[in-house]
Amino acid sequence: MKSTTDLNMVNAYIPGRADLAPATGAMIERRDALLGPAYRLMYEHPLHIVRGEGVWLIDPQGRRYLDVYNNVTSLGHCHPAVTEAICTQVRTLATNTRYLHDTILELAERLLASVPETRLAHLMLTCTGSEANDLAYRIAKVRTGGTGVIVTDTAYHGITDAVSKFSPSLGTTVDLGAHVRLVPAPRLYHAAGEDLGERFTRDVEAAIADLRRHGIQPAALIVDTLFTSDGILPEPAGFMRGAVDAIKRAGGLFIADEVQPGFGRTGEHMWGFQRHGVMPDIVTLGKPMGNGQPIAGLLATADALEEFGRHSRYFNTFAGNTVSCAAALAVLKTIEQEGLVPHAARIGDVLRDGIADLASRHEGIGDVRGAGLFVGVELVSDRGTRTPDRWLTSQVVNRMRDKGVLLSACAMGHNVLKIRPPLVLTADQAGMVIEALDAALTEARSAMPA
Amino acid sequence: MKSTTDLNMVNAYIPGRADLAPATGAMIERRDALLGPAYRLMYEHPLHIVRGEGVWLIDPQGRRYLDVYNNVTSLGHCHPAVTEAICTQVRTLATNTRYLHDTILELAERLLASVPETRLAHLMLTCTGSEANDLAYRIAKVRTGGTGVIVTDTAYHGITDAVSKFSPSLGTTVDLGAHVRLVPAPRLYHAAGEDLGERFTRDVEAAIADLRRHGIQPAALIVDTLFTSDGILPEPAGFMRGAVDAIKRAGGLFIADEVQPGFGRTGEHMWGFQRHGVMPDIVTLGKPMGNGQPIAGLLATADALEEFGRHSRYFNTFAGNTVSCAAALAVLKTIEQEGLVPHAARIGDVLRDGIADLASRHEGIGDVRGAGLFVGVELVSDRGTRTPDRWLTSQVVNRMRDKGVLLSACAMGHNVLKIRPPLVLTADQAGMVIEALDAALTEARSAMPA
Repeated sequence: MKSTTDLNMVNAYIPGRADLAPATGAMIERRDALLGPAYRLMYEHPLHIVRGEGVWLIDPQGRRYLDVYNNVTSLGHCHPAVTEAICTQVRTLATNTRYLHDTILELAERLLASVPETRLAHLMLTCTGSEANDLAYRIAKVRTGGTGVIVTDTAYHGITDAVSKFSPSLGTTVDLGAHVRLVPAPRLYHAAGEDLGERFTRDVEAAIADLRRHGIQPAALIVDTLFTSDGILPEPAGFMRGAVDAIKRAGGLFIADEVQPGFGRTGEHMWGFQRHGVMPDIVTLGKPMGNGQPIAGLLATADALEEFGRHSRYFNTFAGNTVSCAAALAVLKTIEQEGLVPHAARIGDVLRDGIADLASRHEGIGDVRGAGLFVGVELVSDRGTRTPDRWLTSQVVNRMRDKGVLLSACAMGHNVLKIRPPLVLTADQAGMVIEALDAALTEARSAMPA
Repeated sequence: MKSTTDLNMVNAYIPGRADLAPATGAMIERRDALLGPAYRLMYEHPLHIVRGEGVWLIDPQGRRYLDVYNNVTSLGHCHPAVTEAICTQVRTLATNTRYLHDTILELAERLLASVPETRLAHLMLTCTGSEANDLAYRIAKVRTGGTGVIVTDTAYHGITDAVSKFSPSLGTTVDLGAHVRLVPAPRLYHAAGEDLGERFTRDVEAAIADLRRHGIQPAALIVDTLFTSDGILPEPAGFMRGAVDAIKRAGGLFIADEVQPGFGRTGEHMWGFQRHGVMPDIVTLGKPMGNGQPIAGLLATADALEEFGRHSRYFNTFAGNTVSCAAALAVLKTIEQEGLVPHAARIGDVLRDGIADLASRHEGIGDVRGAGLFVGVELVSDRGTRTPDRWLTSQVVNRMRDKGVLLSACAMGHNVLKIRPPLVLTADQAGMVIEALDAALTEARSAMPA
């Protein structure tokens, strides 16, 4: 069911599909003319947003939308701890890493302190998660002498030239690299009792063998540790161990992409890899790192970095600038001070339990899963066959938007609701999400084509 | 004279070469432990900077350094128009391009209005110049069906995996791509009367032919329009025309990398390509775009983007966020309101004339050149043979730092002083640069090894 219009993005605005308010239509037209054909808006009725406040996004008419989709502003929109850190620093000094400065060192110390069980020893900074994964890949190539990359079949790791080649979720019109192999994501809901750890290990081993058969040395196994674009797949904890052992035995690195799962979202640890008890050679960081300020980066072992550091200097003008570092430091302190990791666990349970309760009244809910405040709801047209219901998913996403609750969807079948609110979501607000989902599912059912 | 220690970076701090104050030494040690082996500091005695103010950088002891090197903070450090735009916006809304918002549209309109003579029609935003060049390359590949890239022999275009493969200034330990061809930069000072336009055209044509001989279709000729890392090479105006025609005839795109020359620095136009009267298919933007806020991007013709937009959606979480767009808009308005383009021309003349006057007393000055507030001073050991004097260049850079004037060096011979102050530099401050350079050259001469 691939459309060339929405290019594999389930929740894109499609021109002409819905009647828009004249002001919105005119703004979209102006935007298309200025930004060109590669940009996408969300929802059948795109949103014009002018203000953000905690878990709320606000339009020009003052209508408030409960934002349970933006995992960047993880502390809530415009959290004062971060905005004031940015304002103070931007008025004092905004400059780069070719000078000595304290903040970046304090940031590095705090980040490295969050992974005591690993051998991760160094922090490198970039501006985006794409740059972080791109740099991780450069480092892996230098360290291993290989180029081969193994990722899951609907993975997203970013949009640089190199990284887009191992981001199959961008759709079949963006070419994978000849050095890239896909393995099935660990879909417990569809596993029919199979041991997913054994299966994943076997698949990674087969990918390694296939790369070698083509004369390609494996450089890395890269996984988003919550398998975000694969459909939010947290279970079973620990299942990655065999695959990580396999890539290391083959001389490749294990890169944990924490751009989406990281910074406490799972409600258990700061990082998604920690729930699987595996040891990454490189961990990439991004999105919520500066609560909206562009900052990303990676943690690497001394062994992974040594050769790269000998051959390549690394300078990225804006990465590690004093302002972005001040924002990231404020984020780390706030997560700790506000107890957001245990809070995410608590509210995540409320949210998942409430949605699971809806399943008794809504046949379309096939599976409810997640960790902390990253929740996936798999919608199916038939619980017996577990057939993806893309139509229902799109209905629910757009109806919830109309009710004032913002979320989106993911997975190969485009049928998994992706719910990742700011970590400060309250139990009451979780209740609003559940209530809106209940109503949206009811309405969608009565709108179902015969 | 390649050193594996400084990896082709003429102005890097080399551990152990100079005695450092204990506090500085301890901070460097802490930094090396935390950030690992790929980071570099500038100067024999690295600077610890805690505050910026206009053209000044300030250390913890309150010592002020005249900053004539940072072309990011082009309006001066902490310019209030930009800091207040950032503070207002960051407290109101920091979010992404999947929602409608005004600021990005106003920014696009202003940027496109700066290139009325071209067919550039769309703005796309990234966070860094590297991402902008990486995206430009992706677009060129889709548009042309080719992969071949032609760049000058000491070019720098960024540090993503793809872009580092056509950034020879990173040094010989970073591999060029098999699809990359280098052409000599247009070194008028070394041209011995040869017509550089004809020469450059011939070289680009030969590179195209060589790519084809290897079965590679050319995708793009990419040049920094002031040839920054090649040694700051502004003349002769117009010399690029034949080469641009050649790449277009061959089915490739012409990409003008304005990350360093752009935003009025040349004192003539907003963009470096405009002095050469050539029509780019894509123009990449960066460094001074947000006066320090991470924002970069590209302008492209509708023709260049059409195919890419049909095949690939483009979403970069932080690129085009409301805060970065507010900063960039403030930068454009300030350049206009403060008349910084003509100001850059005026002060650039003062600076170049003053340095040219020094040449009568300092044999080491071989050539003084530039456009606006981008000035190159080529230092030679022998004016007759025009032999690069790398030793003298390093001496001058470090002695000027000790005198409180910050600059650096570039070019294949590592012998061109790179002077690119904030555009708000005054004539008096230009005088301070000239005076410090005079003294540094005198001291270096007396320190010269026998």
